[in-house]
Amino acid sequence: MYRHGGDIYLNEIKMDFSTNVNLSGMPEGVIRAACEGVMHSDRYPDTECSDLRKAISNKISIPTEQIICGNGAADLIYSIVLALKPKKVLIPIPAFYEYEKALRIVECKIEFFPMREEQQFILQEDFIDQIKEDLDIIFLCNPNNPTGNLISKELMHRIINKCEYHDIWLVVDECFMDFVENRKDNSVMDQCKNTKHLFILKAFTKLYAMPGLRLGYGVCGNIELLKSMNIVSQPWNVSIPAQMAGIAALKEEVYVADSLKLIKREREYLIEELQKLHYRIYDSRANYLFFSAYPRLYVLCLEKGILIRDCSNYLGLKEGYYRIAIKRHDDNEQLIKALREVNDLWQNQL
Amino acid sequence: MYRHGGDIYLNEIKMDFSTNVNLSGMPEGVIRAACEGVMHSDRYPDTECSDLRKAISNKISIPTEQIICGNGAADLIYSIVLALKPKKVLIPIPAFYEYEKALRIVECKIEFFPMREEQQFILQEDFIDQIKEDLDIIFLCNPNNPTGNLISKELMHRIINKCEYHDIWLVVDECFMDFVENRKDNSVMDQCKNTKHLFILKAFTKLYAMPGLRLGYGVCGNIELLKSMNIVSQPWNVSIPAQMAGIAALKEEVYVADSLKLIKREREYLIEELQKLHYRIYDSRANYLFFSAYPRLYVLCLEKGILIRDCSNYLGLKEGYYRIAIKRHDDNEQLIKALREVNDLWQNQL
Repeated sequence: MYRHGGDIYLNEIKMDFSTNVNLSGMPEGVIRAACEGVMHSDRYPDTECSDLRKAISNKISIPTEQIICGNGAADLIYSIVLALKPKKVLIPIPAFYEYEKALRIVECKIEFFPMREEQQFILQEDFIDQIKEDLDIIFLCNPNNPTGNLISKELMHRIINKCEYHDIWLVVDECFMDFVENRKDNSVMDQCKNTKHLFILKAFTKLYAMPGLRLGYGVCGNIELLKSMNIVSQPWNVSIPAQMAGIAALKEEVYVADSLKLIKREREYLIEELQKLHYRIYDSRANYLFFSAYPRLYVLCLEKGILIRDCSNYLGLKEGYYRIAIKRHDDNEQLIKALREVNDLWQNQL
Repeated sequence: MYRHGGDIYLNEIKMDFSTNVNLSGMPEGVIRAACEGVMHSDRYPDTECSDLRKAISNKISIPTEQIICGNGAADLIYSIVLALKPKKVLIPIPAFYEYEKALRIVECKIEFFPMREEQQFILQEDFIDQIKEDLDIIFLCNPNNPTGNLISKELMHRIINKCEYHDIWLVVDECFMDFVENRKDNSVMDQCKNTKHLFILKAFTKLYAMPGLRLGYGVCGNIELLKSMNIVSQPWNVSIPAQMAGIAALKEEVYVADSLKLIKREREYLIEELQKLHYRIYDSRANYLFFSAYPRLYVLCLEKGILIRDCSNYLGLKEGYYRIAIKRHDDNEQLIKALREVNDLWQNQL
């Protein structure tokens, strides 16, 4: 069985660095709204998520009809796949596992395009040549999970154009885009207006630290796809607490601004400290860092009650790659202290 | 687009009789647990629902491995269908629409077996002849939704045996079984032990009045099916508030006993009053009543701010069939008063 990060239920954990949620924790206003949602949960949820979709629409300036909500972003990955029933799909790797898992349901052929270590796992121009007209979907994650790096704007535009030209669906997972500086420059969401085959995947989970509530959304200029996705989903997939939490979350502008500042500062701190430990750090623009070190690091951290994401089960990676969340300063200091001790242990064992 | 009951979001409603949740409302203990779940929702949910499945296991005396949880019972209908990818399925009608909707995803042939009005829409012995070895799944709902009637124990046993003999999956939706007197006699859950193709579907939604939280579960003695269902689902489909609410709900024994007594009394009251109105009432054993009356009843009720379930969009039914929830006495009195007024209006219009 594939294991994701965040499995604090099978392990004895003091600190979880394996999941990438906002270090600031769930905003008070979101907690209050979700609890109010619980009080209203003697009713069925609104199957249309009307109020939530209107609130998202106002926030991102995209028409309500072009927005779909799901039981977490993962739910939407499954409904895209079931709606489109692709025969052939292209995924650059390493990538989030759920694309592949969902695609296995429809028994489609998956072409994996390995991004190369010597290019910092950053997608390059040669990817364009892989886009052939027999493809049905391409999944891109930007910034990528687990590496955190960005696809260049120029390359992204070439990919969008080629996909439109060949009628290939392009799913761009921007679940971590909110953490990127100059995110407006890097997001391609505003291109949904002018395209017929672009779908943008977004989560509330990460930015508002609410993975336990399950809420994600998607944006697409082609309303036919959204209708097909609703046809392959149960009508009540988004709970009332999640719908109400989402509406409250969109108002949390100060929380977002403050946490982005904190993340920036802590990213710099962690990079500096990880470099001192002689790990190889890749260029993450998200709220997590990706690095390579020696193979036993995951186990040695776990022995200290610290869960980091061992990335060796990502297709396209091997042993020795890790992802850690950028957390609050105290936590980060404790992690660095533990990593130093673990390093000493490791070197003594050699 | 198919419309279920409970769509209070598109209508101006004072009273909703269209959804079948427990008249006692969500228990305090469940509300508290769900809110506590909200506080913990800065983590990902346990993908295994371990604590919840253990609690269900203790409650129903079925091993934990034979239990699967979902984002409402509807979620499990979709994952059964995606896991089994049936080619041919048999459904007695009228039936809950989501079986058919899920089956459309895998483009399977659906045989509908109409239950007859003159037999009170109760499944009869002749159904046995419809069970042929080329079937992959049979969906039964017991007590049935929308009619509320039960399948006789003898017939159910013959169906189970014939399905086992022909390796046909039998999905028995017992989401409303908790409301039935002598439910232990009528439920076939304890037969999961001795069968390889029996799946029982259960909801928390109805008994604990928590449809907005989304929680259902399934029981099956064949663990391979449950594994396949997990493969076609996202790992985090059940939210933390739902998992914690479920654990709390199972402790609510007094609430359940009290509300069953209330429902029994109110069922008798409503039947008596509906008979005075000259509607034809069918033999529902669940927490709702099914009856036939004149075609405009739904609209006339809606004009008074009362939502009842117009059942004319159920395959196998036509105009003039309705379902109402059994609610608290005050609400039921108001409904009856409104129905009397509506009847007068109707007769004046004739």
